[in-house]
Amino acid sequence: MDDIAVDIGGTQLRGALYPPEGIEPKIHKAIPTRGDEPAIERLYSLIESIWPQNNAVRRIAMGAPGALNPVTGITYQIPNIPNWNGLHLKELVEKRFNVEVRLGNDANLAALGEWKYGAGIGHHNLIYLTVSTGLGGGIIVDDRLLVGSNGLAAEVGHITVLPDGPMCGCGHRGHLEAMSSGTGIANYVKRELAAGRTSLLTMDTEPVSARTIARAAAMGDELSIEAFNIGGTFLGRAIADLAHLFNPTIVILGGSVTKAGELLMQPVRKALEETVISPMYLEDFTLTTAALGDRVGLIGALALARS
Amino acid sequence: MDDIAVDIGGTQLRGALYPPEGIEPKIHKAIPTRGDEPAIERLYSLIESIWPQNNAVRRIAMGAPGALNPVTGITYQIPNIPNWNGLHLKELVEKRFNVEVRLGNDANLAALGEWKYGAGIGHHNLIYLTVSTGLGGGIIVDDRLLVGSNGLAAEVGHITVLPDGPMCGCGHRGHLEAMSSGTGIANYVKRELAAGRTSLLTMDTEPVSARTIARAAAMGDELSIEAFNIGGTFLGRAIADLAHLFNPTIVILGGSVTKAGELLMQPVRKALEETVISPMYLEDFTLTTAALGDRVGLIGALALARS
Repeated sequence: MDDIAVDIGGTQLRGALYPPEGIEPKIHKAIPTRGDEPAIERLYSLIESIWPQNNAVRRIAMGAPGALNPVTGITYQIPNIPNWNGLHLKELVEKRFNVEVRLGNDANLAALGEWKYGAGIGHHNLIYLTVSTGLGGGIIVDDRLLVGSNGLAAEVGHITVLPDGPMCGCGHRGHLEAMSSGTGIANYVKRELAAGRTSLLTMDTEPVSARTIARAAAMGDELSIEAFNIGGTFLGRAIADLAHLFNPTIVILGGSVTKAGELLMQPVRKALEETVISPMYLEDFTLTTAALGDRVGLIGALALARS
Repeated sequence: MDDIAVDIGGTQLRGALYPPEGIEPKIHKAIPTRGDEPAIERLYSLIESIWPQNNAVRRIAMGAPGALNPVTGITYQIPNIPNWNGLHLKELVEKRFNVEVRLGNDANLAALGEWKYGAGIGHHNLIYLTVSTGLGGGIIVDDRLLVGSNGLAAEVGHITVLPDGPMCGCGHRGHLEAMSSGTGIANYVKRELAAGRTSLLTMDTEPVSARTIARAAAMGDELSIEAFNIGGTFLGRAIADLAHLFNPTIVILGGSVTKAGELLMQPVRKALEETVISPMYLEDFTLTTAALGDRVGLIGALALARS
């Protein structure tokens, strides 16, 4: 029997039908999340559009950003889909399609995807961090996804790494996300520019983002290099914290900011090595980048369907 | 069949013989860890002294402080027992007594003990923190003890909570242990006294420790109250970090510093409530103190024997 994987994003809903083996979909479709009908109707239409004619679907597994409970299948707060707060999403989709439905947080499922089909194959204790606009993650403990008592675990972006530090998107200060996400790195540059620092980047010309900062850094821009150094250092320290807590054999970094390559990874590695309390944490240990790229959303949901 | 539990401490070796049910030992014995013979010989003697005449021993479970691998049973670094670095402790005791031997980190086993027989009964996701001279912990994830890939997980004392903060016993700066352990709280008072602050406590009269600071705080000493406020605040923030990572239903605080009661717990609760990113983390959530007291070392090992 085939499985259906759905990646619920703030801008796109993506769905794919997968055969029992492999990670190549039989059919794949993407539609905008927002439109005339409610998002739930658009989700139903998407699933219907990839539904096989022989009706041989074993499970539907869905990943979504934000807060949700994978056990009850209730969504609490999904970015850009405001009327899904308190929605019994799993139950609704189960009733509609009459197959088992599973739901997971997208960063958690990305960890599951990288573990089953990506950079983490064969590892039993794994940490996946996605560094993009925000900073999220997923954690595998002894071959099982860590979800916590009501699905809110692995919120790695919201550990406090610098008390009274810069404001995080969540409204608290000094979180890892505020220091090391693309937004955090860009905000550092913006604050320095506002304070009068000179740089190849200016407030006026183009958007200051992790991408433009990485480009400026490649041209030797001091402020831009410094911004990645700071973001990478706090990320490396946080990885040391996570190593002390989880003692994993692999940490996988995904998300758009990792496209900066060594500009990010070099300070991450340096801070990690300087911060661990014993070299034993780095024995038989790998720090690497994600393997699945943009497919991680669907493949993570597929991994949930097959788990 | 009975089980033997052993609590290997830096000053005392304690052993007890337990019947198959309950947590009252049939026999209990404690000897100093150091003496004329090597510690391993003293350990053998202790176990022999509580061995039942009918030879009906199912397992020996042992807890020890410091770094060890519970899977291989090798000790890396045990405080006060220097020649146990790299010792195949599990194998040695198994060969000597010809029964299955299990080994665990003492703070990890304390978590197991509180979960099975103490304040954490019935919880599936639990965090135990012991706040004394140092600061350690143990974590239960989905009814299983988190040990990590080679037994080094749950080192909660060594997460960085204040970059460039005070020196930790491990040689790094700004760790939770450096801020919130008894040593950390005492060091804060000592630094302030050295800087000229006045207090009921002085550098000359009596040892400045968490106990004497708590006593001075009870008499209204401002510096002493402040020291517990700071230690408790960083502890509460770290508990929020752990809630974001593990989403537990209970956090249990043990160790001698918790004897300070509300002096410690009030700032812990306040910081925790202020720091969590969503009140959902504190729904169906309990923050409490340990139930097993000094027995936790043996009962934790007993829980390992029976797990």
